[in-house]
Amino acid sequence: MPDPHPPRHSALREDLLAAAIVSVLLIPQSLAYALLAGLPPQVGLYASVLPLVAYALVGASSVNAVGPAAVLALMTLQAIAPLAGQVDPSVAAVVLAFEVGLLLALAAVLKLDALAALLSAPVLQGFSVGAAISIALSQLPALLGSPAHGVHLRALLRSWWEAAQAGPAVHLATAAFGLGSLALLLLARRHLQALAARWLSRDMAQLVARSAPLVVIAAAIGLAWALAAPSHGVAVVGRLPTLHVPLGLPMLDAGLWLALLPSAALLALVTFVSSFAVAERLGLQRGEHVDGRRELAGLAASNLVAGLSSGMPVGGSFSRSALNADAGARTRWAGAWTALFLAIAAVLLAAPLAWLPRTVLAATIVVPVLAAAEWKAFGFAWRYSRREALLMGLVAAITVLHTAEWALGVGVVISIALMLQHAARPHAALIGRVPGTEHYRNVERYATELTPGVLSLRIDESLLFVNARLLPGLVARRLDAFPDTRRVVLQMTPVNRIDLSGLEALSTLQSVLRERGIRLDLSEVKGPVLDGLRAAQWARWFTGRLYLSHHQAVRDEQGMAP
Amino acid sequence: MPDPHPPRHSALREDLLAAAIVSVLLIPQSLAYALLAGLPPQVGLYASVLPLVAYALVGASSVNAVGPAAVLALMTLQAIAPLAGQVDPSVAAVVLAFEVGLLLALAAVLKLDALAALLSAPVLQGFSVGAAISIALSQLPALLGSPAHGVHLRALLRSWWEAAQAGPAVHLATAAFGLGSLALLLLARRHLQALAARWLSRDMAQLVARSAPLVVIAAAIGLAWALAAPSHGVAVVGRLPTLHVPLGLPMLDAGLWLALLPSAALLALVTFVSSFAVAERLGLQRGEHVDGRRELAGLAASNLVAGLSSGMPVGGSFSRSALNADAGARTRWAGAWTALFLAIAAVLLAAPLAWLPRTVLAATIVVPVLAAAEWKAFGFAWRYSRREALLMGLVAAITVLHTAEWALGVGVVISIALMLQHAARPHAALIGRVPGTEHYRNVERYATELTPGVLSLRIDESLLFVNARLLPGLVARRLDAFPDTRRVVLQMTPVNRIDLSGLEALSTLQSVLRERGIRLDLSEVKGPVLDGLRAAQWARWFTGRLYLSHHQAVRDEQGMAP
Repeated sequence: MPDPHPPRHSALREDLLAAAIVSVLLIPQSLAYALLAGLPPQVGLYASVLPLVAYALVGASSVNAVGPAAVLALMTLQAIAPLAGQVDPSVAAVVLAFEVGLLLALAAVLKLDALAALLSAPVLQGFSVGAAISIALSQLPALLGSPAHGVHLRALLRSWWEAAQAGPAVHLATAAFGLGSLALLLLARRHLQALAARWLSRDMAQLVARSAPLVVIAAAIGLAWALAAPSHGVAVVGRLPTLHVPLGLPMLDAGLWLALLPSAALLALVTFVSSFAVAERLGLQRGEHVDGRRELAGLAASNLVAGLSSGMPVGGSFSRSALNADAGARTRWAGAWTALFLAIAAVLLAAPLAWLPRTVLAATIVVPVLAAAEWKAFGFAWRYSRREALLMGLVAAITVLHTAEWALGVGVVISIALMLQHAARPHAALIGRVPGTEHYRNVERYATELTPGVLSLRIDESLLFVNARLLPGLVARRLDAFPDTRRVVLQMTPVNRIDLSGLEALSTLQSVLRERGIRLDLSEVKGPVLDGLRAAQWARWFTGRLYLSHHQAVRDEQGMAP
Repeated sequence: MPDPHPPRHSALREDLLAAAIVSVLLIPQSLAYALLAGLPPQVGLYASVLPLVAYALVGASSVNAVGPAAVLALMTLQAIAPLAGQVDPSVAAVVLAFEVGLLLALAAVLKLDALAALLSAPVLQGFSVGAAISIALSQLPALLGSPAHGVHLRALLRSWWEAAQAGPAVHLATAAFGLGSLALLLLARRHLQALAARWLSRDMAQLVARSAPLVVIAAAIGLAWALAAPSHGVAVVGRLPTLHVPLGLPMLDAGLWLALLPSAALLALVTFVSSFAVAERLGLQRGEHVDGRRELAGLAASNLVAGLSSGMPVGGSFSRSALNADAGARTRWAGAWTALFLAIAAVLLAAPLAWLPRTVLAATIVVPVLAAAEWKAFGFAWRYSRREALLMGLVAAITVLHTAEWALGVGVVISIALMLQHAARPHAALIGRVPGTEHYRNVERYATELTPGVLSLRIDESLLFVNARLLPGLVARRLDAFPDTRRVVLQMTPVNRIDLSGLEALSTLQSVLRERGIRLDLSEVKGPVLDGLRAAQWARWFTGRLYLSHHQAVRDEQGMAP
């Protein structure tokens, strides 16, 4: 196995190279995500400098590329848009980022990293698809040069309807820039790498394909300059303010903080879940354990700093993190170098960037966002579990038709309900010995031998309140078919936990069986479960025997008192 | 084993005897529970006639004694008291009963009997204790002759404080009747049976002890008559209206129905859970399977009829059902006979009952309610699970200090959170062979043998969204100690279900292991789990082997393709 941690001295060179590549991608992304969130483009640059340094100082993953991200920008838009009349969006975005940072810090202190588990795979995948569609739809007016805008589909359609009545719904020059660059980007993504590979090496071909967006952006800038596009009504990025990041405390307004709190909580959850998933996956490939609490702390620091430096909520970006890892980043300092390169480039490139049509930025968002969405997840889910597939579809639909917050909230509640529903109706198997082994399996699925007088059952669930009441009835129904039973032996391997309700059910089962002259025995009770039973002094009421293996239990060999 | 179903011809005589005994208990209880709910005493009688006949026609259990019950009366009080200014309590009680009936009928049609599982043992036991204290406190003013009243502790204390400022907080003559009968009932419950057993047979002694409340009531009636108690300010039951049950549709007022709906939903849940628990327990002892949906239908019919016949919400009473079973009831018709005897007795005994001081009825409630509460449950829970014990205490406290509805709501939410929390942090055991057997157990708890190159793990939880993300990390950490591993074998007996998130985690684990040159195999995958995996065509991506038993997996014998 190759050593995953070669000596440190070469890390600087590799980090610098990765940072250079990532920062090239980050410049247009940061501008575009700020526009997506309904903020001035420079906010995206502000969010891409100091927050990256903060993550490098505190964060857990060596490859996680922090900064503005597409889904977070969409959620930021939906959070701050309802307050548009009362407070400047940039002010609201700063408060939101600071609140996200505070909540992540609180989660790190209270060890709440397990809360990430609330977002199940179908919810995340449905959300991914729904958010991609929402983002693409939100960029459609910009692509076509329409002034329409809206937080979700209904608002967008209403705004578009109003705009269409006031004047032309499409601005032809803008649409030419937008749809032209969209077509080029789609073609490049589909065919460029294969085409380039005919003449170039595989690595070079990949590099060419990856730099397509840069070429499109450079060409658009040149064309806009040559045609004096702004004088034809094409909106351009415009002269960015000189990059000295405005520092300051977020506005201390209790009403504003309270209004943004629910959105901040969901943003914090999504930020952590999406960043941690990428960091952990890339980490496992590199033989690196990413610590959840430290990742929380790193993301908390980034967002707090974003809130202090006129930024917007930030998190790990899937596309940039993967690029970072591919490009050979070795330590978290690659992120800090990325910030430095971005700052230098923003200063040097301010003049040409001013000519970049905003519609081209919209095109550069739409293509990768639609490509990264997990479109195939639904078909896969449908084959495995209809209910989870429907949940996925519902979450996607709510994300598109309403808001990300509602979609995630409904998704979490339904995930829990589905889990409870399964746990509430356990599968109960009558088990028999697989001939020639000491192994016991379901008599309905395998050829097995039964031992007369002994009823062997395996209840395939932990004994918890959601199912405990069923236990005596399940056993009693099995007994109807075996009236000569003298012992019931429960194989306890599937029982991972017994809660108070389960303990009561076990005691009820024992007394019901005893009234019929039948002894209740247990086999293969797991260590932690047995510890709990002993702590509760179950020997006071449990009168059966315990066996290390089910085979011994059926033969009644080496039984122990409780 | 004795035949649990002896021939039918003798059932009538036994049912009649049980009915006679139960109806004697039911008369004072029905009056007292109506007063507890803040209703005129005759409402209790109305709720004890036709609803019992409805249950006999539709219900599931042969021994469940339906009618007014203490906890349901408390919840009825809390539901209708806030509407006191707007609508007559009797009218509200009728609407409430009808709504409870409709919801139970809906639950029966939609097969929602599994919802009963939402109330875990700690919630039910905490509620039982809290409700007993609440009921006892609510009867305290009646026992002492104070006009104070209140839905919960705060209202009661405030009302008492106001009453104490307006006049004497205790009415001496009433308190003499109340506390006197309370003392006699407590003494009888503690000592009478043992005392009587010195001279009488065991059965006769039990009969004497059980009839103590009747003797106290009869003596109180006689004393109240002899001393002309009402003229000294002692409140008596008074002349009940002739028992012809007023029939009629409940008031059709959308606002009232809507206001009572949340209370009706929780009353329906508590009615079903408490009645079904008693019916099922008594049924199992008699070798009788009580069907949940049919029990829902029976309780629905009783409550609908209670709503049509000027009654109040009804359910199975634990004390009367146990008495019914003890007294030898054989069929559901014992309930109908009980209703008949009650109707006859109410007519014949109307004259003496009119003299019964209400304070004595309060005493007859307080003693059995306090005795039946599960006081010892807390100590038992504390030894087994601190968290569940604290939940129990919290539910009891909210029941006493606030309302039953809040207590149950908070209890359900915390029960689910505790369950998720446990599932989110699975126990992972490194397992080895118990020498001389084909059985594999935790190497930290048993003397076991390991096979070089093979890492055997048992993840003690279903692979669900709440824990799935941890799986690759858990396995990776175990690998650190065994760098020479060539195969990882997961023993799947504790895995009762794999959801979509779990499936994804399994696939991630496999690809992470493959990058390290390690094969992932599974042993003892249960039938339903394997069916699901095959339906999702996992053979497309799973490259390991499947083994019937873990012993075969470790020896790599008889491995199957997925």
